[in-house]
Amino acid sequence: MTSYMRFLYRPSVFCLTTSRKTVSLLHFDKKRPFSTSKPFPFTKGRFSKGRFGISLNIRSSMSSSTEKKVVQQVERILEGTNDDHGGVIVELTSEPLDPALFASSLKASLSHWREEGKRGIWIKIPIEFSNLVEHAVKEGFYFHHAEPKYLMLVHWLPSTANTLPANATHRIGIGAFVVNEKNEVLVVQEKNGKFRGTGVWKFPTGVVDEGEDICDAAVREVKEETGVDSKFVEILAFRQSHKSFFEKSDLFFVCMLQPLSSDIQPQESEIEAAQWMAYEEYVAQPFVQKHELLKYIAHICGKKKEGEYTGFSPVPTITGFSEKKSFLYLNKQALDL
Amino acid sequence: MTSYMRFLYRPSVFCLTTSRKTVSLLHFDKKRPFSTSKPFPFTKGRFSKGRFGISLNIRSSMSSSTEKKVVQQVERILEGTNDDHGGVIVELTSEPLDPALFASSLKASLSHWREEGKRGIWIKIPIEFSNLVEHAVKEGFYFHHAEPKYLMLVHWLPSTANTLPANATHRIGIGAFVVNEKNEVLVVQEKNGKFRGTGVWKFPTGVVDEGEDICDAAVREVKEETGVDSKFVEILAFRQSHKSFFEKSDLFFVCMLQPLSSDIQPQESEIEAAQWMAYEEYVAQPFVQKHELLKYIAHICGKKKEGEYTGFSPVPTITGFSEKKSFLYLNKQALDL
Repeated sequence: MTSYMRFLYRPSVFCLTTSRKTVSLLHFDKKRPFSTSKPFPFTKGRFSKGRFGISLNIRSSMSSSTEKKVVQQVERILEGTNDDHGGVIVELTSEPLDPALFASSLKASLSHWREEGKRGIWIKIPIEFSNLVEHAVKEGFYFHHAEPKYLMLVHWLPSTANTLPANATHRIGIGAFVVNEKNEVLVVQEKNGKFRGTGVWKFPTGVVDEGEDICDAAVREVKEETGVDSKFVEILAFRQSHKSFFEKSDLFFVCMLQPLSSDIQPQESEIEAAQWMAYEEYVAQPFVQKHELLKYIAHICGKKKEGEYTGFSPVPTITGFSEKKSFLYLNKQALDL
Repeated sequence: MTSYMRFLYRPSVFCLTTSRKTVSLLHFDKKRPFSTSKPFPFTKGRFSKGRFGISLNIRSSMSSSTEKKVVQQVERILEGTNDDHGGVIVELTSEPLDPALFASSLKASLSHWREEGKRGIWIKIPIEFSNLVEHAVKEGFYFHHAEPKYLMLVHWLPSTANTLPANATHRIGIGAFVVNEKNEVLVVQEKNGKFRGTGVWKFPTGVVDEGEDICDAAVREVKEETGVDSKFVEILAFRQSHKSFFEKSDLFFVCMLQPLSSDIQPQESEIEAAQWMAYEEYVAQPFVQKHELLKYIAHICGKKKEGEYTGFSPVPTITGFSEKKSFLYLNKQALDL
């Protein structure tokens, strides 16, 4: 038996049951869980609604003697949000989705989006559904970026050049120059990494978290590694380097901070030792003298200590378009701000 | 029939064939393709070699009457490179790998690495093998980062806190302030994006490619969008903003460039129009006046034009540890460089 039917999708969901030669549609409220021997494999949240009729191609070859619940091949348009660039963003939610159904729905959706003239199609697949990844790839999607809990794939539909934005390319790190009134600089020895066991005293350093401001990250890292409270003063310089982590690049900001406390409590997990060290003693270390980059930084820090250097200070601004607050780092002194 | 055997892996590869009750090992040169009805599912490149004996558990239940080639369940330790942090990096190569074999090999490998006290285990899966992703996830791996052609997964084995480095968190953008001797600034109207059709004239902007220096990216974008050659002068300021692209943050560097040519050829694909515009006319646009961030930038550019502002200039340095060349951006004027 092969049956084809077409209905308009509405906020409530239908399920097909067949009994011998009769075909009926069951209606149920999506707020109440739907139970069959095989769970209904999709919900409102994942499929488009209201905008158009949806073809339900239901092909069943069943014995005519027993009652069977059949939901075999339901091709529907995946629900997505339009983005600002003529594209669609599809976020798979947290319910299980049958891979075969996903594959056929994706195929149908792509046809539909092509007809609509859509450009970049994004699909966010949670890690729980990593079995769906290969099906998206088969339909022409490629990896865009990933975070611990999800993978974002994208498919550029037009025949024109792909203008999709690049993935994040840089990690942001900070090094903290914290100098007190006794001309002592706050330095640490690390338990791990390339300086372990070298006896080298270095500035506290760390990685800026996603969503964290550079000025906040510097204060946080100093506190975490040494227990010292501090106030952000300025970005003195920054270095860009490449292939620092797999293929990724790195921006390392040298920040000056003013200490607000002096007691040191080294971080148990990462820091072997921490201390206030005479600035000249820090600079005299062979490790600093040997490396061009560190010599530059020491030169800048020395000038800054004498009030003869100006870096970039954070000024809070509103990004006009999104109304989000963000920091603009600039030479405040030159602007008389 | 169940047979177990153990041999030491060597640069040449063995394959098992069975004929009735006899078991024999075929030796073949890996440089010559190996052909059976079912291709031999792994090669030297992907499995560890030389360091230890490898258990080959071969279980076959076959008819005793016909000759059969059997390579059913071969659990081997995946080959990896040790990293600097007590971890292992496994890169799957470009030959097909049976998912079930991958799953069992991965399981065996994890046991082995645990015994060895390994910490972070990285697996790089090319997009062609996206069917392997779910098997890595089942063994406890999570997504670390992805690029168009591969997905990097990682698994932290120790019971101590996960100290694996974060994924890249930022995209880097540039805006180019290109002003000529007639006090005209180079501006464009974009074909796509939020300014399309607004009539707004803006600085050329663009995204810094992975592995590209900020100063090079600014020169490249100006050339691409307008056809104008230019020389990088300084970073005047930069803005950090968050959640600018999914969860990712953004660093936008305002760069000053000196034009080396004047003829304009707008980029066909992205630029609606480009021109040299009187600086005062650019600043007077409501779009600039309305937005705090753009007003700040215009203020800085105005000061810079008058020689009353100093930003950061790139100075080439050697990063001491890796001997890589990289740019340090600093206030050159203050250092008398």
